[in-house]
Amino acid sequence: VFTVDWDPEMAEKGGYEHFMLKEIHEQPEALRRFLVGRLNDESVHLEELNLNPEEIKSYSRIFIVACGTAYHSGLVGKYVIEKLVRIPVEVDIASEFRYRQPLIDESTLVIVVSQSGETADTLAALREAQGRGAKVVAITNVVGSTIAREADEVMYLRVGPEIAVASTKAYTAMVMAFYLFALYLGQIRGTLDTEEIQKAIAALKQIPEQVKWIIENTESEIQKLAEQFTKHENAFFIGRSVDYTVSMEGSLKLKEISYIHAEAYAAGELKHGTLALITNGVPVIALVTQESVYEKMLSNVQEVRAREAWVIAVALEGDEEIKKSAENVLYIPQTMELFTSVLAIIPLQLLAYYVARLRGCDVDQPRNLAKSVTVE
Amino acid sequence: VFTVDWDPEMAEKGGYEHFMLKEIHEQPEALRRFLVGRLNDESVHLEELNLNPEEIKSYSRIFIVACGTAYHSGLVGKYVIEKLVRIPVEVDIASEFRYRQPLIDESTLVIVVSQSGETADTLAALREAQGRGAKVVAITNVVGSTIAREADEVMYLRVGPEIAVASTKAYTAMVMAFYLFALYLGQIRGTLDTEEIQKAIAALKQIPEQVKWIIENTESEIQKLAEQFTKHENAFFIGRSVDYTVSMEGSLKLKEISYIHAEAYAAGELKHGTLALITNGVPVIALVTQESVYEKMLSNVQEVRAREAWVIAVALEGDEEIKKSAENVLYIPQTMELFTSVLAIIPLQLLAYYVARLRGCDVDQPRNLAKSVTVE
Repeated sequence: VFTVDWDPEMAEKGGYEHFMLKEIHEQPEALRRFLVGRLNDESVHLEELNLNPEEIKSYSRIFIVACGTAYHSGLVGKYVIEKLVRIPVEVDIASEFRYRQPLIDESTLVIVVSQSGETADTLAALREAQGRGAKVVAITNVVGSTIAREADEVMYLRVGPEIAVASTKAYTAMVMAFYLFALYLGQIRGTLDTEEIQKAIAALKQIPEQVKWIIENTESEIQKLAEQFTKHENAFFIGRSVDYTVSMEGSLKLKEISYIHAEAYAAGELKHGTLALITNGVPVIALVTQESVYEKMLSNVQEVRAREAWVIAVALEGDEEIKKSAENVLYIPQTMELFTSVLAIIPLQLLAYYVARLRGCDVDQPRNLAKSVTVE
Repeated sequence: VFTVDWDPEMAEKGGYEHFMLKEIHEQPEALRRFLVGRLNDESVHLEELNLNPEEIKSYSRIFIVACGTAYHSGLVGKYVIEKLVRIPVEVDIASEFRYRQPLIDESTLVIVVSQSGETADTLAALREAQGRGAKVVAITNVVGSTIAREADEVMYLRVGPEIAVASTKAYTAMVMAFYLFALYLGQIRGTLDTEEIQKAIAALKQIPEQVKWIIENTESEIQKLAEQFTKHENAFFIGRSVDYTVSMEGSLKLKEISYIHAEAYAAGELKHGTLALITNGVPVIALVTQESVYEKMLSNVQEVRAREAWVIAVALEGDEEIKKSAENVLYIPQTMELFTSVLAIIPLQLLAYYVARLRGCDVDQPRNLAKSVTVE
């Protein structure tokens, strides 16, 4: 007789050991759902936001305000909006924004991001922004949440309930939301031509399948890596350009569930201090997905290798060069340079998960943390 | 017979064991020298910059670009300029700025900051900004340096040679430079009235003496603290508002010379991840100098205390409340809320120094680091 331990909670986990692993695996489907009805082959459709074209053309500045993982998605947002729409974007931590008399007015669009829609500091920031006359767009997952109700307009993530404290599918959907939003603004403000938009849309449509590919092709390798990783108490994540923002999110994932002291650094800043901590065997996770800074990043990787760091690179499929400088390489498929973030984070989510699991941490409920920070 | 070991290098150190300690102690005099001729009781005089009033009134945006410690001074700069002049300021890491096609034009003022005036990425950023039509003001210590020569205008720090790799007196002078610059802009653009300027000037004039007071009143206590600190391999620095920027600089000081993995966090972000790393005995250095966020900060301090962290607070003289929540309190004198940064960093410089010294590190020449990063 073959018996299976099975309890109601397990059922909700769909056979996965933890919600986090389930949610990582749900991402291809969640991102597909996110895109439904929001684009066709020619153009992006975010009419759900009820922003009229004149208004969209009037923005002189955009503020993105959020906490934690949502803040990291906003950093990607700044990058894509500035690239595609050429409007200055400032990203602020909600608990900082609300107390600093931010320079916003009627021509400023404020975007707040919160999975739960109940994050206290983000809600307070929303109210602060509205009080100063700005329109507020919310990106959130929870229909009927306070932030969804109070924001002027809402874009829903549609990823289904996220139970694990460490956010995964909500983060990737937030990043996708910024991709779409930037394209939509660029389309209306005329900073992108039809061809550019079509090219970007074609790339976005491939993302769900590419996420699936990454999980299938890296998961077992990451499980092996994790065994070697567990003994470390410190780790560094480095990247340049938008890879730097992904390294922050990867670092937070590892830190919050495995209790390893992980820290992210703009790779070019290493020489200004952190390099002193890079010694024999220290794990350095290097994001190397940006062609425009590839050579510079490669030289940073060689720099840490020269100090005998253990380099794990996340790189684009086909990059053989990086193997010379990194002990391990986790590949993601080729996409537009602008859109690598949503792919590059996947192996880092898996790494955090398997390391935490091997360290015996309570993956879904890390100590001291709550899923939704509804107090200040 | 009493013999003294003495070598030429010691002589240059003026009797101090390390250049870093000498340079920390030189700060009162260095900051006094920095101020000479740049203010009288009524107004700030930065005519050395050759910026005509019409031009100063035309700036719609300011970019501050730098690396490492100089970057941290720029974060203070953003805070004071936005408060006093109400112009949006963006601070960027030079190695990021130069590759990201920054949104700058003729109405943007770019300020680059570099002690040596030779930092490769900062120099490249300067050229990038000029290429895009922006005027560039440099804040530097070295007369005749490449950045001083290529910038359109220069404000010198006048702190004398800084030899230790970890910057101390250059940082405090950079912060003072931003204070003066913000007041000068506010004076010309009319965002500050005569009374406000006089009040600020009176506060600034006290700074050198207050720095001296801090060194005299905290050094022996910090030496004791350092003994307990040396056994730790991880530490966290937290603050809100401009205290957050000072905590970044404090964290970098400790990290670069003691090799302790120190990390700075906006206090309000703790609950979004880092709190998972705060357990029994972990040192948390809390900056508590901002009245406007005092209660919020106090509640963050209590939050980490509840996880049994070892809290060392930097607080304003007269704050008795903080003693209930912090095991150690290092006091700095009262000043305007805007100007606490230049004072709050002093105990953190001393802490880094004494911890590194006790750990037997090469304080003036930390491993892997160079004083002036002239390669990319």
